[in-house]
Amino acid sequence: MINAVGREIPDEILRKMKKPVFTGAYSQKKDVVIRTTAKSRCAAIEKGKPAESKLLVSIEDVIEKTGIKDGMTISFHHHMRNGDEVVNLVMEAIAKKGIKDIHIAASGLFQCHEPLVKLMEEDVVTGITVSTISPGPLAKAITNGKLKHPAVFMSHGGRPRAIEAGELHIDVAFISAPCCDAYGNMNGAYGKSACGVLSYAYADAQYADQVVAVTDNLVEFPACPIEISQEKVDYVVQVESIGNPEGISFGPTKPTTDPENLKIADMTAQLLNETGYIKNGMSMQTGAGGTSIAVAAAVGQIMKEKKIRGSFASGGITSYFVEMLKEDLFQGLLDVQCFDSVAIESCRDNPRHMPMSASQYANPNTKGCLVNQLDIMILGATEIDVDFNVNVVTGSNGVILSSSGGNNDCAAGAKIAVVVTNLVKRDMCILRERVTTVVTPGETVDVLVTEYGIAVNPNRTDLMKLLKHSQLPVMNIHELKAIGDQKATKIVKPQFTDKIVGIVEYRDGSVIDVVKKPIQEF
Amino acid sequence: MINAVGREIPDEILRKMKKPVFTGAYSQKKDVVIRTTAKSRCAAIEKGKPAESKLLVSIEDVIEKTGIKDGMTISFHHHMRNGDEVVNLVMEAIAKKGIKDIHIAASGLFQCHEPLVKLMEEDVVTGITVSTISPGPLAKAITNGKLKHPAVFMSHGGRPRAIEAGELHIDVAFISAPCCDAYGNMNGAYGKSACGVLSYAYADAQYADQVVAVTDNLVEFPACPIEISQEKVDYVVQVESIGNPEGISFGPTKPTTDPENLKIADMTAQLLNETGYIKNGMSMQTGAGGTSIAVAAAVGQIMKEKKIRGSFASGGITSYFVEMLKEDLFQGLLDVQCFDSVAIESCRDNPRHMPMSASQYANPNTKGCLVNQLDIMILGATEIDVDFNVNVVTGSNGVILSSSGGNNDCAAGAKIAVVVTNLVKRDMCILRERVTTVVTPGETVDVLVTEYGIAVNPNRTDLMKLLKHSQLPVMNIHELKAIGDQKATKIVKPQFTDKIVGIVEYRDGSVIDVVKKPIQEF
Repeated sequence: MINAVGREIPDEILRKMKKPVFTGAYSQKKDVVIRTTAKSRCAAIEKGKPAESKLLVSIEDVIEKTGIKDGMTISFHHHMRNGDEVVNLVMEAIAKKGIKDIHIAASGLFQCHEPLVKLMEEDVVTGITVSTISPGPLAKAITNGKLKHPAVFMSHGGRPRAIEAGELHIDVAFISAPCCDAYGNMNGAYGKSACGVLSYAYADAQYADQVVAVTDNLVEFPACPIEISQEKVDYVVQVESIGNPEGISFGPTKPTTDPENLKIADMTAQLLNETGYIKNGMSMQTGAGGTSIAVAAAVGQIMKEKKIRGSFASGGITSYFVEMLKEDLFQGLLDVQCFDSVAIESCRDNPRHMPMSASQYANPNTKGCLVNQLDIMILGATEIDVDFNVNVVTGSNGVILSSSGGNNDCAAGAKIAVVVTNLVKRDMCILRERVTTVVTPGETVDVLVTEYGIAVNPNRTDLMKLLKHSQLPVMNIHELKAIGDQKATKIVKPQFTDKIVGIVEYRDGSVIDVVKKPIQEF
Repeated sequence: MINAVGREIPDEILRKMKKPVFTGAYSQKKDVVIRTTAKSRCAAIEKGKPAESKLLVSIEDVIEKTGIKDGMTISFHHHMRNGDEVVNLVMEAIAKKGIKDIHIAASGLFQCHEPLVKLMEEDVVTGITVSTISPGPLAKAITNGKLKHPAVFMSHGGRPRAIEAGELHIDVAFISAPCCDAYGNMNGAYGKSACGVLSYAYADAQYADQVVAVTDNLVEFPACPIEISQEKVDYVVQVESIGNPEGISFGPTKPTTDPENLKIADMTAQLLNETGYIKNGMSMQTGAGGTSIAVAAAVGQIMKEKKIRGSFASGGITSYFVEMLKEDLFQGLLDVQCFDSVAIESCRDNPRHMPMSASQYANPNTKGCLVNQLDIMILGATEIDVDFNVNVVTGSNGVILSSSGGNNDCAAGAKIAVVVTNLVKRDMCILRERVTTVVTPGETVDVLVTEYGIAVNPNRTDLMKLLKHSQLPVMNIHELKAIGDQKATKIVKPQFTDKIVGIVEYRDGSVIDVVKKPIQEF
């Protein structure tokens, strides 16, 4: 079946996954949804009183007690990012017990999770559902078809939506807890492995059949603050280390110093200014890429010059937004993930830097999530096409590079969604006739800003009008593509097999695209 | 049917209410429970983007939009206590619209809610489910049989249990929000009507079909901190006042100055000391009564002398526990309700003074609630009997004086549950052969301390042994009763009609007793 962004989605996959095809960014919006039931064990009675101990002695003990077995879904959150050690620890123990056919539902997976590749080859891990994945061995192995079932790429808002709807049922959730007491009260703020917030794990704690806190910092009862509370937690297990916090600020979390990217950032800020989005009460989110952060810096500069105070900045938080909060450029920060140690400290110490759940952040099936309040969203892209469809999952050669993250969530919610990217990357024009994989539908993307020019989505006639007399290099997206094609010295036209290795879910749960195994091995 | 505390519970009531009889404090414990489904409206799409406004102009508008109609259940929380204005405001508007047969599921109702009496007479309000109720016109009207259906008295832990189980279904929850933004993020910490925490409303926000925030302090987005978050809130309405915060510290929230009560407090502290409960890592809860608070003060004195540092104090929090936190006698406070302005300020400013949900506090059908961790619980009582059964709902004359509160929750969880009370009150001996109404089963009550002596529950042979050589006036409960009967100059033997005006639910949802209409009118 051809979906609303022109992608062929095999009927067989739709039947098998019991998912609808994508029919438009808001077309599958429901009036009312039903959040599913959730199991809860009740505290045992021992010697005539409710039992007090939830402490287990080892991960092996946890696997025994939770009864993890073939075919189960277990979940993880990714706030330790590339420093995480819990996924490997748990999966190694599962493999040792001879358990097979595990579905990992992680909010994110990184290079450090390379050991999963071997477990995929051994059919210990046969399914992966993920919202963030970093380029590297694991992403390559999925690309190469080593995972038995197609990986499912969900957005940050789509994941809690799926959990709450009962579409993504978690048997056992493992929550990495930098600070935890023996009865399961925990937070991400304190301890040698402090990661800031535990936001992506809230839905898991609420809906998984069983919840295990894994900590390397067991504190006296009660842990303080209580970010996830005891009545949701079945077991607590202490390990030597849940991860290396240095791995948290993995990837670009600083503003670019590249002159071309700085130019893109400046043009973007200028465009936002000319179109009236930089104003009192404004809100803003950027990804953690170098150019995105440079946009935040440039926007901050204009805010200061114009004495503008915004409402909030949101999403994954870096030190740059912390700085803007300190300068009182925003009323508050709303944080689902701390990207560096400055953000971790700020979230711990500054009450105006607040954690939020993934549902509060971006779940479309709620009474109103935060992305609905966003004015400005700065998006990254591996590719974009002439219909403004955005790809962040695969590179132009077809290799998996990332997952949806909050890309299509924020684009759907924000009043202006701007893709900032070099037009020419690695000698290739990333503005294509059709992106390799659609993650974010073009109807929700408003502007593309590149080093060679700016294209505005024709459905935003209001922006066109505002930019009519601008000095900015605004042009038709086809003109921009022609420039890119001319500047590029390399054209990659990957060939694909018929094997589907990934399914890209739109935030509403519909299939917006599939990822096929390229003929080339990665 | 006669239940496990010897009470006759008419089969008809059990069938009608679909509730089991009480069979023992822990006998109906389940291994696993299922939390029910919950409805959620999804934010509308307006002009191609998710709609942003949840603001309604008036309570009338709220009733219109939520579609409140005959027979619905609407809920309220009671953190504004005797200062609350929201219940009356909403109910008045409902009455004006001619809506009948409303079931009010409030975590608490006070003297200020006297206008409900008229609405009961007019069949606007025909059902009440409540966990706290103050003596006064409303309680008298229920006693006199003015409510069409029997009132249901739930414990503080039983209420969220019933909500999560789907037994108490809420159509529309009204949440009084001292600080709220237009998208429904709210807290109890700030504003002219600051009440501290909103704990009892968390379950309502999670499970009600529709959730309305009623605020007299609409702040810029985002409200900070976010105690209940936007994605759970359908509508926000601004009113002139949600209540008078002076009504919060209603009732005794200061230590007694009465010499007899001080003696009871001192003996209690001494008993706790001699039985080894005053030790490092200890935890403690008391009610807000004058004698209970005096116990806290006396225990605190021993802690200081012995250089003991406790784990936590919990429950409704008064300035006396705040003082103990400041003196570092406890690691933390866990708060479901602030009883005075000092507690409100502390909860706002001291990170170690933490809010908790009613489920985290006392819900027996969870993986472990806070009362399970309690060492010492100091209970109040209107009556106690020779089987150590406790009454807090009715007076000896049969009039309704209160509701279950956390009484049976804390008794069931705590390692030592001590009832502190005058043996002789208003010239009557409150130690009876059988209490008028059983709220807390004697099997969970360990000690009774009165001005004339102390009785230990015979099932606590360990305590008996520890107190063998004590100087404290420990005696058999029948001996203590004989003293009380001798000292008392008045005997009240109320006569009851057959009309059931109240049902007392044990925390597990079983019927532990019923309240019948006395022949005497109140």
